[in-house]
Amino acid sequence: MKNEQLVLAKRPAGLPQDDVFRFEETDIKTPANDELLIESVYISVDPYMRGRMNDAKSYAKPFSLNEPLNGHIVGRVTESNADGFKENDVVTGRLPWKKFNTVSAKDVKKVASTDVPFHLYLSTLGMPGHTAYGGLLNIGKPEPGETVVVSAASGAVGSVVGQIAKIKGAKVIGIAGGTKKVNYLTEELGFDAGVDYKADDFKEKLAEAVPDGVDVYYENVGGTVSDEVFKHLNRFARIPVCGTISSYNSKEDNGPRVQGQLVKSQALMQGFLVAQFENQAEEISQQLAAWVEEGKIKSEVTIAEGFDKLPEAFRNLFTGNNFGKQIVKVSNSLD
Amino acid sequence: MKNEQLVLAKRPAGLPQDDVFRFEETDIKTPANDELLIESVYISVDPYMRGRMNDAKSYAKPFSLNEPLNGHIVGRVTESNADGFKENDVVTGRLPWKKFNTVSAKDVKKVASTDVPFHLYLSTLGMPGHTAYGGLLNIGKPEPGETVVVSAASGAVGSVVGQIAKIKGAKVIGIAGGTKKVNYLTEELGFDAGVDYKADDFKEKLAEAVPDGVDVYYENVGGTVSDEVFKHLNRFARIPVCGTISSYNSKEDNGPRVQGQLVKSQALMQGFLVAQFENQAEEISQQLAAWVEEGKIKSEVTIAEGFDKLPEAFRNLFTGNNFGKQIVKVSNSLD
Repeated sequence: MKNEQLVLAKRPAGLPQDDVFRFEETDIKTPANDELLIESVYISVDPYMRGRMNDAKSYAKPFSLNEPLNGHIVGRVTESNADGFKENDVVTGRLPWKKFNTVSAKDVKKVASTDVPFHLYLSTLGMPGHTAYGGLLNIGKPEPGETVVVSAASGAVGSVVGQIAKIKGAKVIGIAGGTKKVNYLTEELGFDAGVDYKADDFKEKLAEAVPDGVDVYYENVGGTVSDEVFKHLNRFARIPVCGTISSYNSKEDNGPRVQGQLVKSQALMQGFLVAQFENQAEEISQQLAAWVEEGKIKSEVTIAEGFDKLPEAFRNLFTGNNFGKQIVKVSNSLD
Repeated sequence: MKNEQLVLAKRPAGLPQDDVFRFEETDIKTPANDELLIESVYISVDPYMRGRMNDAKSYAKPFSLNEPLNGHIVGRVTESNADGFKENDVVTGRLPWKKFNTVSAKDVKKVASTDVPFHLYLSTLGMPGHTAYGGLLNIGKPEPGETVVVSAASGAVGSVVGQIAKIKGAKVIGIAGGTKKVNYLTEELGFDAGVDYKADDFKEKLAEAVPDGVDVYYENVGGTVSDEVFKHLNRFARIPVCGTISSYNSKEDNGPRVQGQLVKSQALMQGFLVAQFENQAEEISQQLAAWVEEGKIKSEVTIAEGFDKLPEAFRNLFTGNNFGKQIVKVSNSLD
């Protein structure tokens, strides 16, 4: 049986085009003691991966040239040589972008329930969900009646942020691009308002949507959208900074410096990584699963089909061509 | 006896020139019940006043046109009609920029000790000292061995920040303008290093001064100086934002957006005003006074002589022509 992998062929400038990636044939390694052979089924593409494509010191090690990219994957055990795992177990872990991986059993874990769509373990019940929960509740700390604004609001992280904020009793305004996404926020997810950042009257609509100012701004996009939100910060506002996707493909990211606004509003802005909430991971997993079961957290997914679709699906994250969580399905074996 | 006051004649664009101010003769009002007549002796000029000269919503009410400016003053009671105060008592308070003020006794308080230079109640033992202490210890929270960087380091706030950080066992690097100020930091105040932001090799010298990165950056200046400091933030760095004096006379304040750096370093940036530490004021006053008495906190002062020097002294804050705390002495009656 043949294996296939996707390697980083060169470091991108701007949006990663096809020549940044290279598909390669490779071998399948028979699992040794305590190892598993895992077939990739759902592969997650996430914005943070863009940073790892650069050769720059950052929070995550850069991807190595001519090595497979890697990230969160839902897979099926096809051969187990490890206690506690058997064929057809469904597992998740951070794995290389290969159709088949042979890994130590301790690098993956079995999914908590097989009653939910498996791709949720890459979104609401996975890293994006933990990112939403950890940043919003540890840093944003919304109180009932406060105004919470979230950008990239229909995305994998933003949609969960807004729904948790609603559960906590806040007024929630989501910023997203285009009428379809904005309507989804209010009609499907229960947000109080949605604002289209691509519309000519974005500034005015944002101001209308936050008549009482902004108490929590969950930052996913950066750039001019956030510059505008900062003008509405209330006293003692909190800004969990998850990421700034608008700048990931740019060399420069210049705009109004924010320090003056922070002093005026005595506001707090804090960058974070999901890893820092590791000690709450069990609690977060259980709470998110409960909310999903109760129908309190819904999610949207865009599934591309085929291992060869990985580069395009990755680019969708930055062009806005996805809707909700972007995933690539590379096998039908869990259908 | 004649009285004199300094009013805001027009709102400034950029650095406030003489035509922004107007000196006026006015009356002296005899103190009614519970009132005091106070002769201004030392008048404080502080950077935050620049913001109040604009007609913009901010944390402090804008100064009114054609009304006296106001701020912290050390004065001498010349007539008391209030219990607990007598002639020649030395008091501090936020008062209009007049040679004589008639105010309610509850608007001022007697200085804690007459054994220290009175101008210290406008610097280390006054608002700037409380600003330094509150922001550094509540938000910056330096640990022994950590690296603390402070900008405007020879100024009224920065010099106290650095000396408290030393008391707390941190390694302290100060940023200031010019050799004289930089040498003062290491030779007089006990900082570990000083870096001259006006020097051509500022970037290199800063990098050399923080080989272990920056754990706390106490932000006083903003602009390109701070842009450079942000490149050295350590994981979980804290940035108390006191002010951004480099931008106070500018319409625009554009530069690299900081969100990306905050995520990379999982850093916290928090704007604050001294008023939010009001409930610690007693503790802060006592601790600062003890440190001054023990010789652990020293300070430098630039004293301009004469009520007519107020506009120029105020401009000195932004041109760097002052050294340490800038004060205007308007009477010899406490000499």
